[in-house]
Amino acid sequence: MKSITLIGSGNVATHLGLALKKNNYQIIQVYSRTIVNAEKLATILNADATNNLSALKTVDLIIISVKDNAIIKVIKKINNSPIVHTSGSVDLTIFGDKFKQCGVFYPLQTFNKNIDLDFSNIPICIEANDKEFELKIKQLANCISNRVLCMTSKQRKQLHIAAVFSANFSNHMFSIAEDLLNKSGVEFSILLPLIQQTIKKLEKNKAKNVQTGPARRKDTAIIQDHLTNIQDKDIRDIYHKISENIIKEYE
Amino acid sequence: MKSITLIGSGNVATHLGLALKKNNYQIIQVYSRTIVNAEKLATILNADATNNLSALKTVDLIIISVKDNAIIKVIKKINNSPIVHTSGSVDLTIFGDKFKQCGVFYPLQTFNKNIDLDFSNIPICIEANDKEFELKIKQLANCISNRVLCMTSKQRKQLHIAAVFSANFSNHMFSIAEDLLNKSGVEFSILLPLIQQTIKKLEKNKAKNVQTGPARRKDTAIIQDHLTNIQDKDIRDIYHKISENIIKEYE
Repeated sequence: MKSITLIGSGNVATHLGLALKKNNYQIIQVYSRTIVNAEKLATILNADATNNLSALKTVDLIIISVKDNAIIKVIKKINNSPIVHTSGSVDLTIFGDKFKQCGVFYPLQTFNKNIDLDFSNIPICIEANDKEFELKIKQLANCISNRVLCMTSKQRKQLHIAAVFSANFSNHMFSIAEDLLNKSGVEFSILLPLIQQTIKKLEKNKAKNVQTGPARRKDTAIIQDHLTNIQDKDIRDIYHKISENIIKEYE
Repeated sequence: MKSITLIGSGNVATHLGLALKKNNYQIIQVYSRTIVNAEKLATILNADATNNLSALKTVDLIIISVKDNAIIKVIKKINNSPIVHTSGSVDLTIFGDKFKQCGVFYPLQTFNKNIDLDFSNIPICIEANDKEFELKIKQLANCISNRVLCMTSKQRKQLHIAAVFSANFSNHMFSIAEDLLNKSGVEFSILLPLIQQTIKKLEKNKAKNVQTGPARRKDTAIIQDHLTNIQDKDIRDIYHKISENIIKEYE
């Protein structure tokens, strides 16, 4: 499995393409609906660009990294070929029975095009429609990552939901904090040691066992006072909902 | 300012006491309502233990580190002395006019008694009722921390709310993720690289600028699918509320 075509030119396709190229895989084509985007990534990866799914060359593996709701449209236009998608939430069954070898190749990470990251630390979750193909994509995954796991579509979906909570939602908590501080003329960077310590604790402890703060202490006076001092109604609602849930958790 | 008495024997009092002792301050007494708790910390700090606020010795500084709603009760029983509390949420005015020198000494960190931490990285937020005392407690803070800031009670309250979002609420997001994974037979540790990358991004970027995930992409199909696949109603509500807020944020 040496020649690969990438369908998509977004964050995941970019980082995955770079990691594959670094590990001596040959990226043959990059497809994007928008040819300029395909060309941009293709140039970096030394590949051809296309915006025509009917014109794909024969390769060892096609990797689909497009928005989840676009996967089915793409699949319909691609002929039988070894193929995987990279989505956390889309079931393996989306491939139907057109593809003899199909699978999932889900890198569990938060990708931003302009932020470098080391793919070797990124867990890759694998699923395939047969054992032979599973082994093949597992070998591929092992070349670019130190942590490769096989899991079912059902497990992967729960993992994706857990990832949304741990990465996207925690990031939104930081974003809310930043807004609150900006309004008060306090720098966000003052919170970094606190945030870093919160994460450090997770290396050796369950999150549940190291929770702190007003809700953990069921300090309803502080919670009420905080609610009174949050101007934005939606942010207040979020504070309220999460605090209630923490209180319930420890009752 | 060399002799200090600690009121309280909880997480903050413990870590603060240890940091002060390490920097050659003499802890004279440790007070706790429960004498056993006072003795436990006093032993570590080479101090006397007491559960009697009327029997406090004269010291250079009294530090109150008790639950927020207990601060006022404690203050009522203490005679005039240089004094600070360590709360993020309690206003300086709580001291009334009994104390000639009073202030706030708020270390911004998440403390667990059994988890070591390096106090030198912990920002300490200072406020005082006069410039002379402010200078004194600032000097004290500078001995144990590299980052000392003066701020008003109003700013400190917003900072505390921001800290609740960034530390307590993000930790709860991790806790929810862990629960979801446990139920699916997937190890939580698989999420650690993702979480660490989420934090690493904050060092050089605004959280708002590096948000990713279904809500950021306004991928309502995935959001709906996730909601269908979360069993617990409260967790579903939290997913929904935060996603809505992220979507709104980027509209």
